[in-house]
This record gives sequence, structure tokens and C-alpha cells, in this order.
Amino acid sequence: MPRLMKKLSKTRGLMPGTVVFVGDKKIDKMHIRIIDYDATEIEEKTVSSIEECYPFKEKPTITWINIDGLHEVEQIEKIGRHFDIHPLILEDIANTGQRPKLDTFDQGLFIALKMLIINPESGKIQSEQFSFVVGRTFVISFQEKIGDVFEAVRNRIRKSAPRVRFMDSDYLAYTLVDAIVDNYFAILETISEQIEEIETELINDPGPGNLESIHEMKRELIYMRKAVWPLREVIGGLERIGSEFIHDPTRIYLRDLYEHTIQVIDTVETFRDMVSGLLDIYLSSVSNKMNEVMKVLTIIATIFIPLGFLAGIYGMNFDTSVSSWNMPELGMRYGYIFFWLLALLIGGGLFVFFKRKKWL
Amino acid sequence: MPRLMKKLSKTRGLMPGTVVFVGDKKIDKMHIRIIDYDATEIEEKTVSSIEECYPFKEKPTITWINIDGLHEVEQIEKIGRHFDIHPLILEDIANTGQRPKLDTFDQGLFIALKMLIINPESGKIQSEQFSFVVGRTFVISFQEKIGDVFEAVRNRIRKSAPRVRFMDSDYLAYTLVDAIVDNYFAILETISEQIEEIETELINDPGPGNLESIHEMKRELIYMRKAVWPLREVIGGLERIGSEFIHDPTRIYLRDLYEHTIQVIDTVETFRDMVSGLLDIYLSSVSNKMNEVMKVLTIIATIFIPLGFLAGIYGMNFDTSVSSWNMPELGMRYGYIFFWLLALLIGGGLFVFFKRKKWL
Amino acid sequence: MPRLMKKLSKTRGLMPGTVVFVGDKKIDKMHIRIIDYDATEIEEKTVSSIEECYPFKEKPTITWINIDGLHEVEQIEKIGRHFDIHPLILEDIANTGQRPKLDTFDQGLFIALKMLIINPESGKIQSEQFSFVVGRTFVISFQEKIGDVFEAVRNRIRKSAPRVRFMDSDYLAYTLVDAIVDNYFAILETISEQIEEIETELINDPGPGNLESIHEMKRELIYMRKAVWPLREVIGGLERIGSEFIHDPTRIYLRDLYEHTIQVIDTVETFRDMVSGLLDIYLSSVSNKMNEVMKVLTIIATIFIPLGFLAGIYGMNFDTSVSSWNMPELGMRYGYIFFWLLALLIGGGLFVFFKRKKWL
Amino acid sequence: MPRLMKKLSKTRGLMPGTVVFVGDKKIDKMHIRIIDYDATEIEEKTVSSIEECYPFKEKPTITWINIDGLHEVEQIEKIGRHFDIHPLILEDIANTGQRPKLDTFDQGLFIALKMLIINPESGKIQSEQFSFVVGRTFVISFQEKIGDVFEAVRNRIRKSAPRVRFMDSDYLAYTLVDAIVDNYFAILETISEQIEEIETELINDPGPGNLESIHEMKRELIYMRKAVWPLREVIGGLERIGSEFIHDPTRIYLRDLYEHTIQVIDTVETFRDMVSGLLDIYLSSVSNKMNEVMKVLTIIATIFIPLGFLAGIYGMNFDTSVSSWNMPELGMRYGYIFFWLLALLIGGGLFVFFKRKKWL
Amino acid sequence: MPRLMKKLSKTRGLMPGTVVFVGDKKIDKMHIRIIDYDATEIEEKTVSSIEECYPFKEKPTITWINIDGLHEVEQIEKIGRHFDIHPLILEDIANTGQRPKLDTFDQGLFIALKMLIINPESGKIQSEQFSFVVGRTFVISFQEKIGDVFEAVRNRIRKSAPRVRFMDSDYLAYTLVDAIVDNYFAILETISEQIEEIETELINDPGPGNLESIHEMKRELIYMRKAVWPLREVIGGLERIGSEFIHDPTRIYLRDLYEHTIQVIDTVETFRDMVSGLLDIYLSSVSNKMNEVMKVLTIIATIFIPLGFLAGIYGMNFDTSVSSWNMPELGMRYGYIFFWLLALLIGGGLFVFFKRKKWL
Repeated sequence: MPRLMKKLSKTRGLMPGTVVFVGDKKIDKMHIRIIDYDATEIEEKTVSSIEECYPFKEKPTITWINIDGLHEVEQIEKIGRHFDIHPLILEDIANTGQRPKLDTFDQGLFIALKMLIINPESGKIQSEQFSFVVGRTFVISFQEKIGDVFEAVRNRIRKSAPRVRFMDSDYLAYTLVDAIVDNYFAILETISEQIEEIETELINDPGPGNLESIHEMKRELIYMRKAVWPLREVIGGLERIGSEFIHDPTRIYLRDLYEHTIQVIDTVETFRDMVSGLLDIYLSSVSNKMNEVMKVLTIIATIFIPLGFLAGIYGMNFDTSVSSWNMPELGMRYGYIFFWLLALLIGGGLFVFFKRKKWL
Repeated sequence: MPRLMKKLSKTRGLMPGTVVFVGDKKIDKMHIRIIDYDATEIEEKTVSSIEECYPFKEKPTITWINIDGLHEVEQIEKIGRHFDIHPLILEDIANTGQRPKLDTFDQGLFIALKMLIINPESGKIQSEQFSFVVGRTFVISFQEKIGDVFEAVRNRIRKSAPRVRFMDSDYLAYTLVDAIVDNYFAILETISEQIEEIETELINDPGPGNLESIHEMKRELIYMRKAVWPLREVIGGLERIGSEFIHDPTRIYLRDLYEHTIQVIDTVETFRDMVSGLLDIYLSSVSNKMNEVMKVLTIIATIFIPLGFLAGIYGMNFDTSVSSWNMPELGMRYGYIFFWLLALLIGGGLFVFFKRKKWL
Repeated sequence: MPRLMKKLSKTRGLMPGTVVFVGDKKIDKMHIRIIDYDATEIEEKTVSSIEECYPFKEKPTITWINIDGLHEVEQIEKIGRHFDIHPLILEDIANTGQRPKLDTFDQGLFIALKMLIINPESGKIQSEQFSFVVGRTFVISFQEKIGDVFEAVRNRIRKSAPRVRFMDSDYLAYTLVDAIVDNYFAILETISEQIEEIETELINDPGPGNLESIHEMKRELIYMRKAVWPLREVIGGLERIGSEFIHDPTRIYLRDLYEHTIQVIDTVETFRDMVSGLLDIYLSSVSNKMNEVMKVLTIIATIFIPLGFLAGIYGMNFDTSVSSWNMPELGMRYGYIFFWLLALLIGGGLFVFFKRKKWL
Repeated sequence: MPRLMKKLSKTRGLMPGTVVFVGDKKIDKMHIRIIDYDATEIEEKTVSSIEECYPFKEKPTITWINIDGLHEVEQIEKIGRHFDIHPLILEDIANTGQRPKLDTFDQGLFIALKMLIINPESGKIQSEQFSFVVGRTFVISFQEKIGDVFEAVRNRIRKSAPRVRFMDSDYLAYTLVDAIVDNYFAILETISEQIEEIETELINDPGPGNLESIHEMKRELIYMRKAVWPLREVIGGLERIGSEFIHDPTRIYLRDLYEHTIQVIDTVETFRDMVSGLLDIYLSSVSNKMNEVMKVLTIIATIFIPLGFLAGIYGMNFDTSVSSWNMPELGMRYGYIFFWLLALLIGGGLFVFFKRKKWL
Repeated sequence: MPRLMKKLSKTRGLMPGTVVFVGDKKIDKMHIRIIDYDATEIEEKTVSSIEECYPFKEKPTITWINIDGLHEVEQIEKIGRHFDIHPLILEDIANTGQRPKLDTFDQGLFIALKMLIINPESGKIQSEQFSFVVGRTFVISFQEKIGDVFEAVRNRIRKSAPRVRFMDSDYLAYTLVDAIVDNYFAILETISEQIEEIETELINDPGPGNLESIHEMKRELIYMRKAVWPLREVIGGLERIGSEFIHDPTRIYLRDLYEHTIQVIDTVETFRDMVSGLLDIYLSSVSNKMNEVMKVLTIIATIFIPLGFLAGIYGMNFDTSVSSWNMPELGMRYGYIFFWLLALLIGGGLFVFFKRKKWL
């Protein structure tokens, strides 16, 4: 589960446009991967310094520069200067507490998203900022650490004739966003399985642990919501924008992507509805269980308390020798038998009463 | 009850426009039914291969090609190629987890809907994707399995002079959507009966089973909502669209259909309101019942615990021979009688107290 | 209380535009009343066949044809044919499960509304569909059964010089809708009295019956809401519409009516707020009562259970003859007196404890 | 507290535009006060007949005619005829159940508002309709009874050189509305004090009385909301309206007033949030108290019930003379001492158990 | 925690535009700081009289006049007259209960905001009004007392070459608002830590104190919401406004600021969601604890009450000498042993029963 808020303290009081890394340092050294391709050729390499990326700016082939690690801010400033990225955008890249957004500037487009990954060990959702700049012939993407959801995209590019190889940088950008949105569906599937699991448990054997699971799911959905709602605007804006960086053939794909985003939002909202329904069931189950406990207590107590009183009476020590008014039952031949009959009568009567009340 | 989410895992990482079947395979082989008609003639047949549908593309008569079974994706791709359907739309046809949508492309319109059917055995609502493509002289519809809500439509077409025989493919499309929306009313009727049933039960004899029913109804309404809200946009869009595939005479019918959809949405929302009201009643009934149980316990316990104490006192063994201060009541002539009078007084007094408190 | 939904089963699978009566048959025979008037003359009659209405179509005087009973669909189709009413509108007239709506067609306007009547016997709200067609010189209105809220309107028309006699058919239509909206205020007054009644009851003596009343009021308000919200659109549309059937002098009255409708909606929403507040009070009262019950139980039990234990001790039969360690209290001179002092001390101490806790 | 709804029964079935007094008659005779002023002179008088107001219609000085008492409808009709007020507006003036509204007619503007006054005796909020007509050189205002919030306004006019003396009738109208909105802040202050008071009480010593106070505050806020929300539209409309009766210099004041209204709405909504938060605290406090009660019961009962059983055992009369198997403890030398040790052990053990559970 | 409402009583009945100080007097004497700078030079001084600010009006350098203390209204009126500030705006400056707003007037812009500061001692949020006027070459800001969030801004100005030194007064204004919004993030961080703390506490050891904390956090979020929602409009308006006081280079920064504000709003709403989730957990935990208490009570009582009855029976004094029917068990050789066996059987049986019910 991601923390509620990134520590922004570091950025306070600084001049706007100052590039400051906000977030936890998750990686030691920056890690730069370059994929450069056109319809016929492809080159893939991992470089160690920012400067090695510079030549790709002017190359007519499409280049995807992916940078893992955002804490070396001078490096980011360097790349910003070379690729003409506005300082306010560099600030957004380094600030990982960013809300998903779309920005245009003279030399390109800037998009920031949340990449959600299910931690394979803990089964929890982890959030990572993924932001990228789209230039005429390149896409520069920034991640907090190594490991992402783009392996399938890379494999598609490596193949000799996929659509992506014949299209511009905007289609590559679309492909990246599409991979992230696709991944949201995976997250939702996981949550949907959790919901169904808890639902079954609640009906069969509710316990205090369910409350925590419900709360956690609620939190996860609040996070997804926060990640997805602004995404709608981002993708909708991308589709409508009159930018030279988005070409017409890509628009139909963006339309499709927009609809997927709507579907994610829809599903998140539906799940929120469901989860709040689960809470209702949980509370009712708890109160039902309580009811059951109370009934048993009531039945035992209401049967045996009067009987106890009866037994108490005949344990009294009134002096029978003083007068025959004092506890004559004790001296009767069948007194004890009568006592038992009376006790059974009272007990049985109350039993029938409870049966009628449907408490048994 | 449909599952919360379709497994989309299969589509992840694939190139957009790749046709992948998403859903459960519900039928063995594709099943193709063709109805071809104009004002004067009608031809109906079931064919076994996609290729047999090809000739109807250019025929000037109206053709309705209905395909049951979506798992043979190559077949769908074949039909897509022949009838010029965009690959992204083919993808949507095969992905049964689709949100209701309307898409236009050069050769026609594409509409995806949810067809809801009440399973006659379990009484549960089942959801099936129904999507279709409207061309100039044909409608090609896709279902997940055999069995639908269009029998009445087919019968109307078979009759010699219904309106549908004189109109274009758009009217046929309208007729199909109309049949599905009509069916929503049937579902709502079923739910309305369930609501009234539970309402009566809750007033007369509430039990834990009601909670489950209420939850299930809530879920059903969430599903209906998800199926119907986007439908409004779809039909509204169909009415307003400036497409060559929608002719003016059909528009008035679409307006009517739009209002039916609004009515379905209205009713779903009203039912949601009702169902959440039911939950309130359920919870109150449970707490009322608990109250009643507690009252009985309290009455019995508060009457008999003091009496038990009283009996306990006269069961004590203080030595009366030591002094006359020790339990002189035990040696009194009418001690036992007094005991009973006192017990009746206490019991009666508490009884009156409870009567006044309106607990009895 | 109206049922949750009209049985629509009959209309399913039929050709759109087929006139089918949906609803309960509430009257044996159709009942037709005609009022025909202009500024100087008035003619009122009850006729038995549709055909007798035909001449009024072309007469320049204003005619109000009111038809009670909708189950004779052929009659409705006949009148539709003569007065050029579109088949889809005839379908809406016969389908009493209609949502309030406004439709325009070449020969006039169509308006469907819900007329709410308080059943004088049961005190429940009953809903009836009231729909009418406005032509150039006539208004044809349709009701499910005899009995309506228009008696005052009729009396006004009968008077020699009311405004209605000098104005066109649109003003007559306005008058009818106005009478229905006026009646909504009457219903709201009844509900407001019920709310205040329950409010008083809840504060003074809450009981399980209140829950049912609250639920019923909630349902009634849901119905009113369903009847009134679309009405706003209908009247707003009527005011704005550029139709030849609405003349300027009537518009100011429609504006006034629109504001009344807003006020009805406002009041319904306020009442919904109030009713949900009542539920909160009810639940709190129930839980308060429970609390009180629990307190009495606790006080009695916590005082007498320890005392019972005390009495139990001195009822033990340890053999005092074996040693003087065994229950020496029993042989003491003032043992019994000390016992009572101890009991009073314990009881009194607990009493003070409860006083301090404010449980008494 | 104002009643939920005005009795509108009297207006039902009447011709629209009929002037009927709706509300409680709160005053015996109509009471008319006239203030007539321009930049240099001022005349103030109280007149007894409507006719005495007539001359002010044409006088170029600004005249404020304030009429207390609305039940003499013929008088209102008279003034309406003389000052050319539309009959529908006269109807609105007499109907005190009006929603705040703004109406324009040929000879002026009509504004209806709710004036809220805190009854100095009961401390409850009372609502009174305040409506007025703005003509070119006059403002005619209508109140239900004597006593209003305009004393400060009158004093300002009486001073020799306030802004109001140099401006037109629209500024006078603004001044009146401003005084009413200012008064809303006073009401809100009172409510805010109540909220803080209850908050403190709830934390320190919650009781059933709080529930009633919370409910009353909720009701008051519902009323304020109903009075204020439409006011926003009224004042916004006044600011934007292209009427000849509103002059530019007044607009900036209307803008300011509009913002005050927004602030009132904001505060009402915030208070509603707060009050519903109070209900949550109240319910939790009640349930906490219940918990505490239950804990005491449980502790006492669980400690003494087993001890009672123990004492009961040694009160049994098994015949020790039959065999040494029968209750040998009774004959032991330190039996009684052991009994007490055992009892203390059990009691102490349970005490420690409860301490650990944090119930003590 | 700020009070619910400022006492506005003082302003009631006054002429609009009258400058009245609304709020608590938090400082003795007005305190005026002036920073005057251009790209090359900077002058900083603290002055004691308003008149010393006058010369800066016409000076071409940028001047920031910051005034702490609003209770000396004549001083504010003086400055208003000299700098041509509209009286209605002066009224807003002195009224610290203002809603955040943006106003334009001929000589500049007026902006009012809420500055939130966490009191370092109590840890509570304190609210202070910060309003300022932007003229062509000056910004005059007003605070209630000394101490603000602008120290970092002042330090930046003092440096020799920051952007602010080269830009106009609008950029200075932006910088001030930016510092306030940045501070909101600090507040949100504090709240987020509180939420996580309470979350942990609720899961591990819930207590009545949590309720108060939750309520306080709710209140704080209501305040933040009230401060931030209108801010969106203010900054959005500032960005879009066609005013001569906002220059194009500043707009991109305003856009950025606008997005930060949206993020604050988003976070506030998310936190509200979270906090209401916490309340649910709290209530459930309380009810779970209650359940546990009830179970212990039930188990002890249901085991020992029947056993107590059993012991009571054998404490009865039926005369065994009368007949062998009377309590023959007492005279049996192993009677006492059998009694214990029976008691263990009953106790063990109930224990197993509870185990099965999962109450243990």
C-alpha cells in the first residue's frame, strides 16, 4: 500500500522550477535504456551517462530513452537543457507525488501517470510515478526504479513488422499509456477476486479480520481512483489537442484508450459500491452473531434463574417444628417429586415460549 | 449472477487491434443464422461457414446475419475482412467484457450492448454481450451463445407486412436494441417482485437470510446500472449522429427508445433507493428483535435475582440457639407465609414497574 | 401505495407503435365527457361512442374531450386515426407505466403526467396516469378511471367570464396541468402532517410501528419524486418550445407553473432529508431504550448477585463442631445482624457507585 | 421553528392570478409606513389607507412603502391596480409559502425572500416572507407582521448624507436584501454557538436530550438552506439582468451581496456536515456508555456467579454420615478457610483476566 | 482549531463599504514592513506610520508592503484612499471572516486567502486571513498578526539574481499565493500522519479517545475544504482574467499553481473519505469489543447458572426421613461424587458447545 502522501517538505520555500527529487530513493544509480528504431532497423542499448543520449535528439529514427531513478537531479536538469524541456516540467518529473497530468510546451508534450504494480511477495499494490516527454522523434520516459509493465511493448518493437515500427513517436507514447491502463485491469481483477473471496467468507464465517481486509480494499480503491480519474482528462486532452505532436492515425487508438479508461473508472466506482456493501454485510453479520449469543444467554438464564429460586426456597431453614405453616412441603411424602415436576413444568413452559418466539 | 469481471489477462501486452476472445467459452461451434428479406420476399437459413455469408454483402435486400459463439477468432477476423470492419472493432466484438458503446467507421456503425437473461432454473440474472455491426444493407450481430431475446423480432419479420420489411437496416438495428431494452423491463419486473416479497417478509418475520437477498439484489442493480447507464449515451448518440446509416424515419423510433432507456435508468435508481431502505428496515428489525430478547432476559433476571437472594437469606445457617438476634424469622409461626408474601410483593412490584416502563 | 412497477409483460415483443393497454382495468366501459366552449357559449355532454367526438375536430370553439378508461384500445386507435395522433403516442397513452413526458408531433402536443390522489378510505396515495393531446382547438385527455382533480377547473369554465373562456386550447392544457400540480401540494401537506406526527411520537413514545410509517413515507416520497422530477422538464420544455400550439399569453402562466413545480421538487427533497433524519432519531431512540433496559438489568444484577453469594456463604454446611475455624460467624451472637449490615453496606455502596456513574 | 408547510388548501382550484392570503394571520390591521426622500429632504409617515400611497407613484423622489399584514387581499389588489403590478405577482405576495424568487414585469421587478428572525423568548428561528416590488421611483415591500430587520436601514436613510440618499430605488432594494442577508449571518452565529455547545456536552456528558437538539439544528439548517439556495439565483439574476430598473452603480454592490450569499450557503453546508458529525459522536457516545455498563455487569456477574456456585456446593446436604466420600470438605478442620482462599483465588484470577483484557 | 464563525455582529446594520474590523485583536500595534526592489537593488525597512508607504506608490521599482494587524481601521482607510482601493475591498480586508475571493477594480486586483499555520505548541491548525492588493508596481498585503509562511520568499528576494527580481508585481503576488498553497501541503502531511497513526491505533487498541481525534480531523478537513475550494476559482480566475495586472510570463506559473490547488483539493477529498472510513472501523471495533465482552459473560453465566441450580437442589431440606422418595441422592454412598461428575459433564458439554459455535 502506498503511503498517504509523499513528503513534500523538501520543496517548500524553493523557487518554482527548481528540480527537487520528492520520494523515496529506490535505486542506487540512474539506469538508462535506449531503443532506437525505424521500419527497417532497430538498435537497443544501455548507456551509463546522459550525454550518450544527446545524439538521438536530431536522428530521424524513433528513439525511446527510458530513465530509471530520479534522485540525480543534475542529470535530469542536463537532459532537460539538451532536449529543451521547460524547468517547471523537470520539477514535475522529479516530484513523484504528482497528480496525473498532460502539459504541452514548445518542444513537445509532457505526460505524468501512476504505474500500479502488484508486489508479488506481499500481494499489495505499489504505486510508481511514470512520466514521459514526447518529442518529434523521441520519447523520454522517467521511472522511479527498474522494473515496469512495458516488457510486452519492448518485445513488440523488437519484432520485425509491428504497427509501432511504421508509426511516429506519438504512437509509441500511446503504446506506453496503453500498457499502463491494461495493467490497471490486472489490478482490478485482483481486487475483484479479493471482493468475491471476502463476500464468501462474510456469508460463511465472518470475523474481525474481514473488517481490516475491507478497509484495505477501500484504501486501494481510493488510490486507484486518484490515479485514474485525472487520467481520463489526460487521455481525453491528448485525443482532442490540436498539437503537432499527435498525428491523425493515432487518434483512433487514443479514442479506444479513452474508452478503456472510462471502463476502469466505471469498474473502480462499481467496486467502491460493492465494498461499501460488504461493510454493511459485515456489520450485520457481527450484529447477527451478537444476537445469537444473547439468545443463548437469555434462554439459559431465564430458564435456570427461576429454577434456582425454587431450589433456594426449599433450602430455607424455617423451623417446621414451630408450626405446620412453615414449609409443610418439606415434610410431604412426595415433596421432592413434586419439586422436580414443578421444575420441569417451568423449564418446559419457558422452552415452549422460546420456541414460539422463534428464538430456538 | 455474472462474475465481477471478465478475465482480461489474455489480452494484456498484445498489439491493439489483435482479436482475442475474452470470456467463458459457452458453446462448441459457431452457429450462423441468416435472415434475408425485402418487402416482398424472405429467406431464412442456417449456414455452417462464414464464407456462405459473403454474397449478402452486396445484395440489395436487408440481411441479418446472427453469429452465436465468439471463441473462433479467425472466423471473426475473416468476416471482418470481408465486410470491412476495423480491427479495433473486431477486438471489441471478441472482448465480452466490453462496456456498452457506439462506434462509427467508414463502412458502418458498431454497437455493443449487454443482453440480460433471467436463468429459468436459478432465477438469477445472466449477462451476455450482444454486439452488432450495421452496414448499408446488412446487420451482423454477435452473441456468446445460442438463445436470445429476439424470437419475437424474428416472428415479426416472418409476417408478410410488418413495418420492418419496408425499412432499412437501421430500423432492423433499432428493433434489436428495442427488444433488449424491453427485456430490461422484464428483469426490473422480476426485481420489483423480489423487493416487494422481501419487504413483506421483513415486516412479518425478518431473518439473516434477508440480508443475503438484499445484498444480491443490490449487486443485480449494480450490474443493471452498469449495463444501462452507458446505453443512454449509445442510443442518444445514435439519434443525434449525422451518419448516413441512420435514416430520418428511424429517428422517431430511436427517440422513443431513448425515453425507454431513461425510464429503465430511473427505475434502477429508484430500486437502489428502495433496496437501501430495505437494509435500514432489516437492521432495525434485527435490533428490535434483540431488544425484545433483552427485555425478556431483564424482566426474568430482575424479578428472580432479588427473590433468589431472599431465599438465600433464609437458607443461612446462623445458629438460632446462640441468641434470639440470629434469624428470628425462622422460628416464627408464620415466617414461611410472610416470606411468600414478601416474595410476591417484590415480584409484583417489579412487574408493575415494568408495565409502567412499557417493557411488557 | 402504487405498486412498484406496472406489468409490462404484455407489450414485450410487439411491434413499436402497437397500442396495448398496460395497467389494471379499473373501469368497465369507456366514459367520454365533452365540454365545448368559446367566450360566449358553452356546451357540456356525455357521449357513449368515440364517433360523436369527431365533429369537434374542425369546430373553431375550444373542446375538451375527456376519456376515462384506457382498456378499449381499438377505441383509442380510432380516435388516434381521426385526430391524426401518431401511433407511438397512442402506445404511450395506453401504457400507464409511462414516465411524465412531452412530445411534439405535426398535429399537436402530447403530455403525460402522474395524477396523485389520496384515497379517502385508506389514506394512501394512489397514482393514475393522466395524458392529453393538445390540438389547435381541442384537448383530448385520457384517464384510467372516473374521478379526478379537475372539478374546480370545470366549474371555472362553466362560469360566464373566466380567463379560460377567452383563451386558446393551450391555456386549457395549462389549467389542467396546474390543477395536477396544485394537487401535489395537497399531497405534500398530508405528508408534512404525517412527518410532524411521527416526529412527536418518536420523541414521546417510539415503537416498532414508527419504522413502518417512516418506510412508507420514504416510499411515498420516492414515488412523488419519480412523478415530479420529469415534470420539471416537461413544463420547462413547454415554456421554451417554439411550437405553434403554445401562444405567448400562456407562457407567463407556464413560467409560474414551472416555479410551482420547482417548489414541489424542493419540498419533496426537503421531506426526504427530514424522513431520513426521522430514521436516525428512531434508531437512536431504540438504542436509548435498550440502554435503559440494560442499565436496570445491570443495577439489579450487580447489586443482588454479590449479595446472593454472601447469603450462599452462610448457607454452607461446614461442620462448626470440628473446629472453631469453620464458619465462626454462624455461632456469633450478632452474626445475623452483622450479615444484614454488610449486605446493606454492599448494596448501598453499589447504589452510590451507580449514582456517580449517572446510571440512576 | 416554522411549520413544515404552509396550508395551501385555500388556493386550490382557483383561477391562477387570484390573490389569496396563505399563512397565519399574525396582525389585526394592515400597517403602512412611508419613507420618501431624495438627497436633500426626507419625509416619514404612517398612513392608514392604501389610497394615501397613490401620489408617491409619480413623485420623482424615492419612496419606500412598507406594508405589514397581508390578509386584507382587497387592499393588496388595490395597490396592485394602482402601481400596475401583474396579478400573478399579487398572488405571490399574498402566498407566504413562496420560494425566494425574482420576477420581472413591465413596470418593475418583484423579489420574494425569507426573513429569518430569532424569537427572543424561545430562542427558535421564525420565518417570515418579505417580498417587494421595485419601480422606477419607489419600493413597495410586504411583510406578514410588524417587526423586521430594517431598523438600521431606516436610521441610515434618516441621516443627512448616506449613499442611499443619492442613489435610485434599486440601491434601496439592494439595501433591504443586504439587511436580510446580514441577518442570516446572525442566525448562523447563533447556530454555530449551539453546535459548539453541544460538541462540548457530547464529549463531557452525552444524554438523550442532545439527540433532540441535534435534530432541531438539522431542521433549522434545512430551513435556512431552503431559504438561501434560491436566494443565490435571485441575487445572481439581479446582478446579470438587463433591466432598466437596475443601474450600473448598484451592480458592484450586488456582486458583493452575491458573495455574501455564497458565504451563507457555504456556511450552511459546512454546518450540515458538522451536525451530521455530531450525530455520529452522539451515537458513538451512547454505544460507548452501553459498553461501559455491559462491562460492569459482566465483571460483577462473571466474578460472583462462579463463587455463588461454590458456596452453593457447600450448602448441599449430602449425608456425610453415610460415607466419607460425601462432602469430606465440610468436616475438615480448615475447610472454611480453604473455601475463602479458593474464592479469593477465583475472584482474583478473574480480576487479573479482566485487567489484561483492559476491561477495568 | 479556528472557531466555527467569526463574530460578525459588529458589521450588522452598517452601510456597505464601512470598514469594520471583524475578528480577534491578535496584536497591539500595526506593524509595517516594506521590501522594495528591482533587478539590481533592494531596500528593506520597517516603518511605523502608514504615511511612510505613500512614496512607493509611484516608484517604478516593485514594492511589497506587508501590514500586520487589522484592528486600526482608520489606518487601513488611509492607505485605501492613497492607493485608490475601493471601500468595499477595504471592508473585505478588515473582515477576517472572508471567503477566499478575487476582485478586480480599476487600480488593481484584490485577493483574499486563508493562511493555515500549525501551532507549534498545541499541534492544532490555526487559520489567519491573508489578503493583498496588487497594483502596477506594488503589492500591499494584510495579515492579522506577525508571523507568516513567507520567510522563504523574503530570502529569495534578498538573493541577488532570482527570477522574482526581474519580474513584475504579478509574479510577486504569485509567489505569495504559491507559498500559502505550499504550506497547505505541509498541513496535509501532518494530517496524513495523524490518519496513519489513528489507523494503526484502531487496529491494535481502539478506545473512546480515537473518536475525538477522528472528529477533530474531520473538522480540520472541513476547514481546509472551506479554505481551498474557493481558492481554485480564485487562481483559475487569475489565470484566465484579461487584466492588465497579470502579464503573460506569469500565466504559466499560475497554471502550475492551479494544478497544485487541484491536488490539494483532491487530497482533502481523499482524506475525508479516509476519515469517514476510520469512523466505520472505530464503530466496528467498539462493537467487536462489546461482542467479546458479551461472549465472556454468556459463557460464564450459561455454564454456572445451571450448575448453581444443581447445587441449589441438593441444598434443599426435604425431609428424607418422611419417605425414601425425598432426595434419596443425599443418602447415597457416592452421591457427592456423582454430583461432581454431573457438574463436570454439564460444564464440559457447554464448553464443547461454545467451542463449536466458535465463541471460544
